[in-house]
Amino acid sequence: MAATTAEIRLPGWLAEMPMPLAPASDEACMRLAIAAARENVARGSGGPFGAAIRLDATGEVIAVGVNLALASGNPVLHAETVAISLAGRRLTDHGGVTLFTSCEPCIMCLGASHWAEIGRIVSSALKEDAEAVGFSEGAGTGQLRVEMEARGVVFQPGLLREEAVSILRDYAERGGEIYGPES
Amino acid sequence: MAATTAEIRLPGWLAEMPMPLAPASDEACMRLAIAAARENVARGSGGPFGAAIRLDATGEVIAVGVNLALASGNPVLHAETVAISLAGRRLTDHGGVTLFTSCEPCIMCLGASHWAEIGRIVSSALKEDAEAVGFSEGAGTGQLRVEMEARGVVFQPGLLREEAVSILRDYAERGGEIYGPES
Repeated sequence: MAATTAEIRLPGWLAEMPMPLAPASDEACMRLAIAAARENVARGSGGPFGAAIRLDATGEVIAVGVNLALASGNPVLHAETVAISLAGRRLTDHGGVTLFTSCEPCIMCLGASHWAEIGRIVSSALKEDAEAVGFSEGAGTGQLRVEMEARGVVFQPGLLREEAVSILRDYAERGGEIYGPES
Repeated sequence: MAATTAEIRLPGWLAEMPMPLAPASDEACMRLAIAAARENVARGSGGPFGAAIRLDATGEVIAVGVNLALASGNPVLHAETVAISLAGRRLTDHGGVTLFTSCEPCIMCLGASHWAEIGRIVSSALKEDAEAVGFSEGAGTGQLRVEMEARGVVFQPGLLREEAVSILRDYAERGGEIYGPES
């Protein structure tokens, strides 16, 4: 019998993590995404990636996410797709949202950002940093970014990059599983 | 308060739809995906897309999906990501799986197929057919397909194409919502 339901559930520690007060600055949101990534590795709940989504009109953080692919057995559950899924209808509340992510989105998550009509994507580690530890991020991100920029989406990679890169390196050095296809 | 859980749930009519007996042929699986797309429109549960995943070792259909983006408010829930999410750990059971989809995967869903390590993707309508009715499928699919083919993934577009195209056209002609960014 095939499954007819699946759940996306934040780990308890993340659901209880304090959110920055609104209006939350870019740096506060990125520190939240990076802290979520670090804790996700420290607590063994998944891969070294975290994300947060801020409603720009109010500066309220409306969703957070971490990589849950290994814990859930669902390869779709990257930090960004989890945050987008949890934000749901609030993505279109008013005035647009910014996605903060501890690493530039892989091709699936950039595609999810395209469909979610996210207006601005601020990331920390670069795609090449994730690939340097063995993750296969997927071709096509350059082409999709150009298309998204043409309709006004703003990209800002590299915010607090060294902090996010250190989490990727620690994960790999401690033998963390590099899931997904071999690159 | 931000949401900490989200659910992926097939519509009741789809959960109750009879599955083809194993071993299911390519055509039987594609007819299932197309029937799911058609019913999804007829019952007003979402966009004109359906998908199925078959375990190749046994020919068993292990998951189905339809577009639930509008009904759920979660833009990640395309037919393919729903089917992949529901298949979960069974994706890696033994011997690989084939994804059948009523339309070539958009960039997000091709990225999800990349992470899910799907070995073969059989599709019906082409990307250009979805774009012809207004969906913005996302740049980069050509580049990602080349990369996936290089590691052995097999692509077979166009199976029963006219049947799937007629569903897209009917949806558009009846004023079905063209969600996602404007192309």
